[in-house]
Amino acid sequence: MFDAAEVGRRIDKKDFKAREPELRTRLLEAQRRLREADFPVIVVVSGVEGAGKSEVVNRLHEWLDTRGLQTVAFWDETDEERQRPRWWRFWRALPPNTAIGVLFGSWYTAPIVDRATGATTEAELDEELAHIAEFERMLTDDGALIVKFWFHLSREAQAKRFKDMKKGDRRRKLAPKQKEFAKLYTRFIEVSEKVLRATDSGVAPWYVIEAADPRYRDYTTGETLLAALEQRLALSAVPASSDDALPHSEPVSIDTPEAQITILDHVDLSPALERTDYKRQLKKYQSRLNALSWAAWNAGVSTVAVFEGWDAAGKGGAIRRVTGAMDARLYRVIPIAAPTDEERAHHYLWRFWRHIPRAGYVALFDRSWYGRVLVERVEGFADNIEWMRAFAEIDVFEEQLAEAGIAIAKFWIHISKEEQLARFEARADVPYKQHKITDEDWRNRERWDAYKDAVNDMVARTSTAHAPWTVVAGNDKRHGRIEVLRTFCETLERALDRG
Amino acid sequence: MFDAAEVGRRIDKKDFKAREPELRTRLLEAQRRLREADFPVIVVVSGVEGAGKSEVVNRLHEWLDTRGLQTVAFWDETDEERQRPRWWRFWRALPPNTAIGVLFGSWYTAPIVDRATGATTEAELDEELAHIAEFERMLTDDGALIVKFWFHLSREAQAKRFKDMKKGDRRRKLAPKQKEFAKLYTRFIEVSEKVLRATDSGVAPWYVIEAADPRYRDYTTGETLLAALEQRLALSAVPASSDDALPHSEPVSIDTPEAQITILDHVDLSPALERTDYKRQLKKYQSRLNALSWAAWNAGVSTVAVFEGWDAAGKGGAIRRVTGAMDARLYRVIPIAAPTDEERAHHYLWRFWRHIPRAGYVALFDRSWYGRVLVERVEGFADNIEWMRAFAEIDVFEEQLAEAGIAIAKFWIHISKEEQLARFEARADVPYKQHKITDEDWRNRERWDAYKDAVNDMVARTSTAHAPWTVVAGNDKRHGRIEVLRTFCETLERALDRG
Repeated sequence: MFDAAEVGRRIDKKDFKAREPELRTRLLEAQRRLREADFPVIVVVSGVEGAGKSEVVNRLHEWLDTRGLQTVAFWDETDEERQRPRWWRFWRALPPNTAIGVLFGSWYTAPIVDRATGATTEAELDEELAHIAEFERMLTDDGALIVKFWFHLSREAQAKRFKDMKKGDRRRKLAPKQKEFAKLYTRFIEVSEKVLRATDSGVAPWYVIEAADPRYRDYTTGETLLAALEQRLALSAVPASSDDALPHSEPVSIDTPEAQITILDHVDLSPALERTDYKRQLKKYQSRLNALSWAAWNAGVSTVAVFEGWDAAGKGGAIRRVTGAMDARLYRVIPIAAPTDEERAHHYLWRFWRHIPRAGYVALFDRSWYGRVLVERVEGFADNIEWMRAFAEIDVFEEQLAEAGIAIAKFWIHISKEEQLARFEARADVPYKQHKITDEDWRNRERWDAYKDAVNDMVARTSTAHAPWTVVAGNDKRHGRIEVLRTFCETLERALDRG
Repeated sequence: MFDAAEVGRRIDKKDFKAREPELRTRLLEAQRRLREADFPVIVVVSGVEGAGKSEVVNRLHEWLDTRGLQTVAFWDETDEERQRPRWWRFWRALPPNTAIGVLFGSWYTAPIVDRATGATTEAELDEELAHIAEFERMLTDDGALIVKFWFHLSREAQAKRFKDMKKGDRRRKLAPKQKEFAKLYTRFIEVSEKVLRATDSGVAPWYVIEAADPRYRDYTTGETLLAALEQRLALSAVPASSDDALPHSEPVSIDTPEAQITILDHVDLSPALERTDYKRQLKKYQSRLNALSWAAWNAGVSTVAVFEGWDAAGKGGAIRRVTGAMDARLYRVIPIAAPTDEERAHHYLWRFWRHIPRAGYVALFDRSWYGRVLVERVEGFADNIEWMRAFAEIDVFEEQLAEAGIAIAKFWIHISKEEQLARFEARADVPYKQHKITDEDWRNRERWDAYKDAVNDMVARTSTAHAPWTVVAGNDKRHGRIEVLRTFCETLERALDRG
């Protein structure tokens, strides 16, 4: 989830200075309109230590009109607070209609810290997250706009930040406990990822902001808040009949140039394999996979594998190397094309549930439920609410598979745009490969950037501990196939260890 | 929650025969319109053993067109099912758009039985309920109409039913396990109540049906299904812009004569106390309460008490008998009138959170957050969605108080309509009491039946183990006051025992 916030997005000083005035003007204008509206704005500021949460809050104070802006920092509990139910302090901190309340720390702080330090159990965390979801839904049902920011730093960036602070910038004093947290970085990130995923609802979405560059961090925060506020203001401008549910706001996305940099831009596509080396490794991993697939059959452990990737990336070839290793009785390849009438008359996940294998068997999905957040999103077959909702639905779906002991592998086979063009042209030249290239492929190619965005969101939001994405460098087909086989083997090994 | 389904509602044979044809005709007409619509209807049939779930399913088959009707009974797991994730069988059973799927047993069966028999822990049940909520929301988000029926029998009615079956009606054979369940009745009801409350969302509401009389049971099921279906059909007839969320259906209510019988009709208003007896008991309970309130202060246990009741029922007098027993430093009486501007600019629960006492203190609410589901509902100040949602919001609120160790007592002081009239007239005669009777009181009196419905729903839906309602028989003021004092003492004793 946080991989997408470690791609080096930044804004240089000149650029920032040039863009800042317009952002400020529009923020103030939105705030003016908010004063005539009838809902509150709740801004949650969270993230890793050292990411500059306090600086962001200061920046918002600089940019916004302080009338109608209130900041509450959840620091140590007061006597007053300790003597009342835990939620009392949060209720106290809520802004009234027409105001923006910036919560520095929030109802997320204690659950994350307590779980990361081992003070609470997984079940206690789950219960707490359910309460948080209820609380936020209660507020949004009542009309509130909730904008939740998570400021992320990689471990290295965090270490650097701490060092800089120590060295001399006296204005940003190291708050107590920061050093302890740094030690817990990995655990903290794991827990945070789970918490964010569980509470990333359509009505109160999380915005994960890469915080390594302060200018990018602040500017993107401002732009995101502005977009969310403008969208919500537009919704409340539409008069609703009194018996209707309030129109819920949707997660917003901003399209500054920096936002276009994605995970895929960081995939190293250069690795390649010599033919002899390839042959050797192919044999090795296929034998291993054969043995593993029988072991899984014996143990009753099923496997679900998803193959997604650019047109002509080599999905088919990769799948054939996997099936080539297994007894034909053990696997089924399920090609996903347009849904049938019957499938269309059900929830979109229904058609995939149908193909979930019995214990011990393998299902290989050639394209999958991720179509919802790829082609259906890009082509507009699913509306915004539908594909945004799909991230959470897919998480639940895969969690249910994982809970049943099913091993899950998901591959995005990545190639460069140039490599795709070369393959398209090569296919056009070979008569028996011409059927593989259609007008649709060329049309999809025109939407490369839109797909790139969609893939980034997909990997960021649905790569989980139990169902991780593997982005395969596929410019060299041999390298790609071996990477798929090796990952497949490792996935099965882990599942067999667990089972 | 189930008290409201033990009030003896029934329909006699002649009446049933007279009404049945119209219901059938309208059901078939709704089913015909469903075939042109684009959503499925999921009917969940659950309830206590012996309530006649199977007969209800048969009746629906008799009434509905079997084309477009499918029934799935979740009986023992098949091999096919055992070998796949647990949710697979439910996905398999979902009806397609335009069809009605009757699920006899459902995703609720195992969680309730497992918890009642002690096979799972409370935390595991909570986790499961969160999954169920996600699943149902996913389906309703996609447009499905979910109608969940719970058929209730009191312990006595269940025992009688089992005896009748044994005696001779061979068509209704006692299913295996029924006898075991009967022994677990109390535990089963406790768990079911929690499950229903936790999953009684606005989008997939529960309908608790009193099942002692088969004709009432079947007819009410048919009417409720019809009302829900007609409402949903009306919603989908309104074309929505593609980017809008689907309009959610709301819980329906039916207004057959039997449905007008409520919990309040079963309160025995005859008990009365002689003056000397009253004096004696007043002294006894006030001394006890004094000691208990100091003990609670020492232990840091707070108390929140809610006083609701008909106009002129004697709320004020009851509150004064409670405060008269306590040191004035320990309690605050919070009269709830129209909200202030500041309060109006927040979520409606915000104003009550403000008054939550510090550890060891007592807050007495003269009227309360229940205004949302009483006056605001009846007078239309809150729209249907708002007050329906409030039941769940209030449950969460009170649960948070209870989790913090706060003792909660809730009183509805009940008097008959005649007694109210007598008191109104008496007040009008006494100059210093005239201010207590306003035009509004007379207007409220005209809506007696609407309030009666609202009180019934309120008590049924928000009487929980940690925050139970006490319906006080208040026709005799002395009796009512002693009942309040005694309950108050018992509430504090329980809280101190726990703490």
